[in-house]
Amino acid sequence: MNLLSEILRHNQEFLERNKPDYGDVTEPVSKVPTREVAILTCMDTRLVNFMEQALGIERGHAKVIKSAGNSISGVFDSVVRSLLVCIYELGVSEIFVIGHYECGMAKTTSESLTKAMLSRGVAPEAIQMVRHELEHWADGFSHPVDNVQETVSMLRMNPLIPKDVAIHGLMMHPNSGEVEVVETGYDL
Amino acid sequence: MNLLSEILRHNQEFLERNKPDYGDVTEPVSKVPTREVAILTCMDTRLVNFMEQALGIERGHAKVIKSAGNSISGVFDSVVRSLLVCIYELGVSEIFVIGHYECGMAKTTSESLTKAMLSRGVAPEAIQMVRHELEHWADGFSHPVDNVQETVSMLRMNPLIPKDVAIHGLMMHPNSGEVEVVETGYDL
Repeated sequence: MNLLSEILRHNQEFLERNKPDYGDVTEPVSKVPTREVAILTCMDTRLVNFMEQALGIERGHAKVIKSAGNSISGVFDSVVRSLLVCIYELGVSEIFVIGHYECGMAKTTSESLTKAMLSRGVAPEAIQMVRHELEHWADGFSHPVDNVQETVSMLRMNPLIPKDVAIHGLMMHPNSGEVEVVETGYDL
Repeated sequence: MNLLSEILRHNQEFLERNKPDYGDVTEPVSKVPTREVAILTCMDTRLVNFMEQALGIERGHAKVIKSAGNSISGVFDSVVRSLLVCIYELGVSEIFVIGHYECGMAKTTSESLTKAMLSRGVAPEAIQMVRHELEHWADGFSHPVDNVQETVSMLRMNPLIPKDVAIHGLMMHPNSGEVEVVETGYDL
């Protein structure tokens, strides 16, 4: 059975299992996060179905944005745009940038990606088109702690983000779920 | 108690609760997703701690990328970069774009965001700097189903993504978790 069919089967089972509960729900969960928080973290598969539990984040608490290496690629990239919607339309007053140890981005290089793309048949012209950006991004990420500090600093300096939004930086151990504070947006 | 302190307290409790289990883990979860899949979905708080369960996605199965309205802001934006790492470094062979009904992005406009930014003290010059991109992005999103179709189509046409990667489009009902297929990357 292919993955799409499996997912659809799982979904049917989930709906059948949960139907009685849904019948009782008169007020659906709001799209406005009750904890007024946005979390920017990594797409890493070890954090899926895990990070929220390790931090006590429940459905309805937070907006969660995820990208490779929880990094930002410009002053108005997809991540920043998402955060602007959080702040200006959804009442978010705090941002947590949560990196993790053993982040794959620390090993990814423009060379490794270029080689892989060429071997899979990507046109050299297409790679050339993004070469400078690719180098800046893939080769600029060397350590996940530095990256969290840089991302926090870029967000704090972003002229589109108001100064009263508290921006924190944390690091998570991807196996245990333990977090450490790297940067705080206010005094603990 | 502030949110950061609460999160840290939760984390301590989580670690104390799970310590015995972690002692038994001899092989930590790999960063390579076992189902070879990347999911691009929305940052919506109703999907947090919910979408994975509704689809049967467990820790270790998938890479998960999240942005406002699961949309893409360019041929090499943060979302596409993340997907390239998934494909070329982490063995991902399928991408699921999962939008949802009642997506806040359908109501967000450049006018509402601009007004909110000005009222929070953002410099008009900073807004002017991104005005065209802001309009294109915020005013271009009118319906979440159209947006899933457009995102799938942009990914399929992206010259940096190999043609043998199956790209699907799904829609989720944010209260029940029910999904519908909008686009399939192969025959069901």
